[in-house]
Amino acid sequence: MYELIIIGGGPAGVSAGVYAARKKIKTLVIADAFGGRSIVSDNIENWIGVQSISGLELAKQLEQHLRAQEEIEISEDKVLEIIKIDDGFLIKTDAGKEHQTKTVLVCTGGKHRLLNIPGEEKFIGKGVAFCSTCDAPFFKNKDVAVVGAGNAGLEAVIDLMPYATKIYLIVRGDKIKGDVLTREKVINYDKVQVIYNAGVKEVVGDAFVSGLKYLDAISGEEKEITVQGVFVTIGAMPNSDMTRGLVELNKRGEIIIDYRTGQTSLKGVWAAGDVTDSFYKQNNIAAGDAARAVLDIYAFLYKGK
Amino acid sequence: MYELIIIGGGPAGVSAGVYAARKKIKTLVIADAFGGRSIVSDNIENWIGVQSISGLELAKQLEQHLRAQEEIEISEDKVLEIIKIDDGFLIKTDAGKEHQTKTVLVCTGGKHRLLNIPGEEKFIGKGVAFCSTCDAPFFKNKDVAVVGAGNAGLEAVIDLMPYATKIYLIVRGDKIKGDVLTREKVINYDKVQVIYNAGVKEVVGDAFVSGLKYLDAISGEEKEITVQGVFVTIGAMPNSDMTRGLVELNKRGEIIIDYRTGQTSLKGVWAAGDVTDSFYKQNNIAAGDAARAVLDIYAFLYKGK
Repeated sequence: MYELIIIGGGPAGVSAGVYAARKKIKTLVIADAFGGRSIVSDNIENWIGVQSISGLELAKQLEQHLRAQEEIEISEDKVLEIIKIDDGFLIKTDAGKEHQTKTVLVCTGGKHRLLNIPGEEKFIGKGVAFCSTCDAPFFKNKDVAVVGAGNAGLEAVIDLMPYATKIYLIVRGDKIKGDVLTREKVINYDKVQVIYNAGVKEVVGDAFVSGLKYLDAISGEEKEITVQGVFVTIGAMPNSDMTRGLVELNKRGEIIIDYRTGQTSLKGVWAAGDVTDSFYKQNNIAAGDAARAVLDIYAFLYKGK
Repeated sequence: MYELIIIGGGPAGVSAGVYAARKKIKTLVIADAFGGRSIVSDNIENWIGVQSISGLELAKQLEQHLRAQEEIEISEDKVLEIIKIDDGFLIKTDAGKEHQTKTVLVCTGGKHRLLNIPGEEKFIGKGVAFCSTCDAPFFKNKDVAVVGAGNAGLEAVIDLMPYATKIYLIVRGDKIKGDVLTREKVINYDKVQVIYNAGVKEVVGDAFVSGLKYLDAISGEEKEITVQGVFVTIGAMPNSDMTRGLVELNKRGEIIIDYRTGQTSLKGVWAAGDVTDSFYKQNNIAAGDAARAVLDIYAFLYKGK
């Protein structure tokens, strides 16, 4: 029986693994990949302490740091189910394995909702982006389309304002959702052009993005705008399926945690990073919150807290 | 008038500076040093993504990452006072400067309480340590003294248990404070020897720590134990003086924050890292919490939240 099973190999899972190893907690890390969702990033400039690194290189460094910990086991596998048993949990995996553990830390992250249009996946990191906090500065003096008119879309426009030359906000219907104040600020900004009733069709380009095709739902015409970037901001989905029915989720499916400790609604289960209801989702935040959760798990296991 | 003044140059202050710069928040960072208190560490193995780095080298990397941000100003100075004014704050510094800002993020960290005995400072990083979560693994197969019999001392003993050969817990009086459960676990562990009524006198050694001298208050004799490490765990003090009377502090003087956002009791003032009442104090946690606070400040400044 393990003392702790960490699920996930992103910044949160790796941070948790390193901290658990150094505390000599008997730990298994189950991850189907390393590096988290920023692995697709061409250039990360806000991983603190590192001026510039590709998502792939960061993923490598994270995996190396985790694998340097001799004290823990790592299994490249996918968790399907977490079942509460006496004194702990039974974890069933895709590879047909069953593991028992006293505590669980869920670091399974989230994924960006995709438009599922041609060119979108092909140009990820080459003009197609999801995180404006991370990537807005790379679009200095460029024309950019933001697809999605909820708060995430509005925030992307605000993030791009000091950088981009022109920002198209692409709205599927005839209304912008999101907070009133933000909406007003966005609409009144002279760099911003809102395109309503636009059904995006294709991201076009050669080596990099050069345009976005959409269907004008009023005229029925297909149109194209010239842009060097497309921010897809139609929401994110937490990878919380395996915890459904086990711990409390909010309406977006995020695991509700106590921010001081990372504890979920079920004793013995913690969560950290993008799978949680944390307001702000960033690699550094995920790594910090996961370290915090492990220290709390350690207090639970060894100090009876 | 600045939109944000960040006070501090440790992992929290640097993280905040990088995030603020990329959000193009008009920011001034005021710091009297960079790197935070782990700058004295010989070897840091839990800065996530980096297998091993000295405190000095980490401090350099943090400072470089901050200085690479062209969007913000940096002032090497010390904040003496933060005064609430209409629409913001007036900040007075040691160099006699006055700055105005809409918001403040306090990242001033904390300091370890020192024993103030000969040899203590000399051997920091050479056997004298403060953070058992960080440094316990470096004392594998060594004899170690832990000075301080509160919860921090007990926790250091537990952290050292899987590593050290012998652990002396040095207690000034005739009682161990701290949680009952932890205390029992510590006392009953066969590697642990508690030395009561011991007034520590001197850390001795040549290049590295070789022993600890103490006065036995019962016999009046000076005694010496042979150890290769001394953990000083008599508490930490937050550097929160300049916020006293401005925001709510807990009884340890730590700034009370809302963990989801980093907000303090006073609108317009945020705090992150070791200066706060965060349960767990680590470089990674401070960096993550500071990024979170900046994103919240950005929402306050630009989204009317």
